[in-house]
Amino acid sequence: MLDDNIRRELRGIVGEAHFKDDMEARVTHSYDATPMLQTLPDGVVYPGSKEEVAAVLKLANANRIPIVGRGAGSNLCGGTVPLEGGLVMVMNRMNRLLEIDTDNLTATFQPGLNTKEFHLAVERLGLFYPPDPSSMVISTLGGNIMECAGGLRGLKYGTTKDYVIGLEFVLPNGDIVRTGGKLYKDVAGYDLTKLLVGSEGTLAIITEATVKLLPAPTHKKTMLAMYRDIEAAARTVSSIVGSRIIPATLEFIDNPTLRVVEEFNKIGLPLDMEAVLLIEQDGFDEASIDADIEAIRRICLEENAAEVKLAGSAEEAEGLMKARRSALSTLARISPTTILEDATVPRSKIAEMVQEINRIALKYGVHICTFGHAGDGNLHPTCTTDARNPEEIHRVEQAFEEIFEAAIRLGGTITGEHGVGSVKSPFLEWKVGAEGIAIMKAVKQAFDPNNIMNPGKIFAKESRKRVVLQR
Amino acid sequence: MLDDNIRRELRGIVGEAHFKDDMEARVTHSYDATPMLQTLPDGVVYPGSKEEVAAVLKLANANRIPIVGRGAGSNLCGGTVPLEGGLVMVMNRMNRLLEIDTDNLTATFQPGLNTKEFHLAVERLGLFYPPDPSSMVISTLGGNIMECAGGLRGLKYGTTKDYVIGLEFVLPNGDIVRTGGKLYKDVAGYDLTKLLVGSEGTLAIITEATVKLLPAPTHKKTMLAMYRDIEAAARTVSSIVGSRIIPATLEFIDNPTLRVVEEFNKIGLPLDMEAVLLIEQDGFDEASIDADIEAIRRICLEENAAEVKLAGSAEEAEGLMKARRSALSTLARISPTTILEDATVPRSKIAEMVQEINRIALKYGVHICTFGHAGDGNLHPTCTTDARNPEEIHRVEQAFEEIFEAAIRLGGTITGEHGVGSVKSPFLEWKVGAEGIAIMKAVKQAFDPNNIMNPGKIFAKESRKRVVLQR
Repeated sequence: MLDDNIRRELRGIVGEAHFKDDMEARVTHSYDATPMLQTLPDGVVYPGSKEEVAAVLKLANANRIPIVGRGAGSNLCGGTVPLEGGLVMVMNRMNRLLEIDTDNLTATFQPGLNTKEFHLAVERLGLFYPPDPSSMVISTLGGNIMECAGGLRGLKYGTTKDYVIGLEFVLPNGDIVRTGGKLYKDVAGYDLTKLLVGSEGTLAIITEATVKLLPAPTHKKTMLAMYRDIEAAARTVSSIVGSRIIPATLEFIDNPTLRVVEEFNKIGLPLDMEAVLLIEQDGFDEASIDADIEAIRRICLEENAAEVKLAGSAEEAEGLMKARRSALSTLARISPTTILEDATVPRSKIAEMVQEINRIALKYGVHICTFGHAGDGNLHPTCTTDARNPEEIHRVEQAFEEIFEAAIRLGGTITGEHGVGSVKSPFLEWKVGAEGIAIMKAVKQAFDPNNIMNPGKIFAKESRKRVVLQR
Repeated sequence: MLDDNIRRELRGIVGEAHFKDDMEARVTHSYDATPMLQTLPDGVVYPGSKEEVAAVLKLANANRIPIVGRGAGSNLCGGTVPLEGGLVMVMNRMNRLLEIDTDNLTATFQPGLNTKEFHLAVERLGLFYPPDPSSMVISTLGGNIMECAGGLRGLKYGTTKDYVIGLEFVLPNGDIVRTGGKLYKDVAGYDLTKLLVGSEGTLAIITEATVKLLPAPTHKKTMLAMYRDIEAAARTVSSIVGSRIIPATLEFIDNPTLRVVEEFNKIGLPLDMEAVLLIEQDGFDEASIDADIEAIRRICLEENAAEVKLAGSAEEAEGLMKARRSALSTLARISPTTILEDATVPRSKIAEMVQEINRIALKYGVHICTFGHAGDGNLHPTCTTDARNPEEIHRVEQAFEEIFEAAIRLGGTITGEHGVGSVKSPFLEWKVGAEGIAIMKAVKQAFDPNNIMNPGKIFAKESRKRVVLQR
């Protein structure tokens, strides 16, 4: 619990209305979109400026109070659960779009800005900000930056990391640092900008960001390739990329996911198919998009697609993409608990990874659907389960552990776009080794010597031993 | 000087032939491509494996011996001059291209691999590695990574940072760390990969790297726009980017540069023009390239280009690009000392920056030519001077100081692609502030607590005060 002096000082910094420690505020900020995790913070603070952020951090640092930065709390790694109590710092008052610079093709904003709102503002000017996490209707850009959010367009356009070129952030000691700018090239010292992206709130609080924008593609074609054989679909992914066509989107959806998505969206998805690929190509020239789509169609058929269908209209295409984006929320309707992971492999290994996931699900008797950004090797094996059944949850955990193991064995990683948070911290050592963890901890210590910034995230108290033998 | 035990141990680690401390080896490694900097190392070591790198680093760390990693020494920031003596670690034995993975579109190599050789190997497979520093015929990929090399294609394709997705590196304590992999998405902990890119040898020695490749564009068009008015040329750059066309290359060359480049290359450059823009667009579809080139041609003429000429053949286009790449080496022929800088501004500010450079050259009575990657705001003001004339050199230094100041004032940076090294370290604070330097130093300390890794680089003993008043 915060003592009276601290509470008084916090109210002095942000104003009476912007510090809360009633039970409602504390409970509301005790969890995020990640299942089965909840811890009460001691208070919630809503800073209105970088100066307020700096003053709160200095106070917290001096008094060893944990600080958990939070946008919309839509992350899936337990990233904003206040594991060690302290203050949740909600950035939603700092939500201004400061500038879209159409000469330099950059935008500058505060961290609390809603992702979708930003997309719309950018698109109104004929510009394009590619990172499009499925949570973008509710997520904030600050959260996207802290987790290095990906999305459906990562294959061709990269993720949040590839767009952030300038930051203003506040260190635990209250220092305000500005990096980068409206600059496509800047090598003045270490790239703190990229280090901060994906740092999961463990190093600093971001108060402003500048991102690159692209000219918006003028044309787009969307197609659906349907498969009776799930591995044929997975093989197609490898074949498309191997043929050197880089589609804007290349999504994999298996039959169980298809069923729930169709039930919710009613857009006529083929329920008799084992898997579909949702493929989109965009660009500035219709003829070359058509050529890509035709080449992809041919590859799909060569890989035994049962049917390939081109979206007949922009509305139909948008319906398909919306349906795909709804996968998590629709899956969440069919069981009390939904656990969505993001093991990622080199894209040539997608077929093997899908096989592994299905083998592991069978082995542990758990229900795992798989969908995801197959084109960049980023699958979302998703388990529909029930947190009230500890025996089943234990099997689910064993299955995911083996899925991470398989991803690593295939040259992959434990997380492609969700972050480590508290959920995957026991597995981080499998990816980066004890030496990698040691140097990451040293970096953490450099930024945050008192360990007040989102403590308990990324680094586990104890790393999980690898139980499955290396083959 | 190294004591006998150290020399014996070094020979034990790398073998008799791969440690040298004769005067010839020491002198040869006492300087790099940067003018007016020379310091003798105590010895030169050529490791042949990551294990040897680790053993040498552990030995050096235990004995507080500076380690200066070196590829080809083609950097322009004094990055590989052994300012505090110690060992120069030359990576040219570790120069193998380990794999080009055509399914995943990645390549993996050792740091000593020559950049141009790598380009050719990749291109033979119809693939494309965009970073193309002008020094690529002699530079190594390890050096490119350590300096985050840019080049002529940065505007559309980004720089080295945008391609490195996996690293193996050795810390001063001998730990070998592997990050990333053949993964387009990986958020497992802090992004040490991107932190290492551009770290100028001050954190670790890279022993292996994996980079993304792209399908090679199948078509390319090259044009030259010629101007009687230098500022019209600069304005054109802003207009092209403002019109949302992103050419692959958009280079600016002023008349003095043009003259020396022509004298050396004899390709018929227009010597009566004040400036030219060398513009290239590439892609997979001829029609859309033609459309871009036509739109750019129109913009050039609207901005008062005297003439716009399309390269008639691939040979002519290649000749133009080769001529541009020769700018530094040809300028170096006309005077004893050539100082090339890389102040960078938001690309909409190119016209203003060119004005500022010319004003400053006039003010200090020094001879500065300007060329560079105008499309990404990265200019290379280049001073032809004589190191034996201290009075003139003093004026040159004052001029560059004022050029850096102007770049910062226009929202730019002191270095776009060359790195800070020892040359620009006194100015780093102008860009990142005292708070930025403090946190960068803390990161350095986390990796290299004994400050053996390329000491004296990035961080100056004393920052330069800003002498010109903020306007």
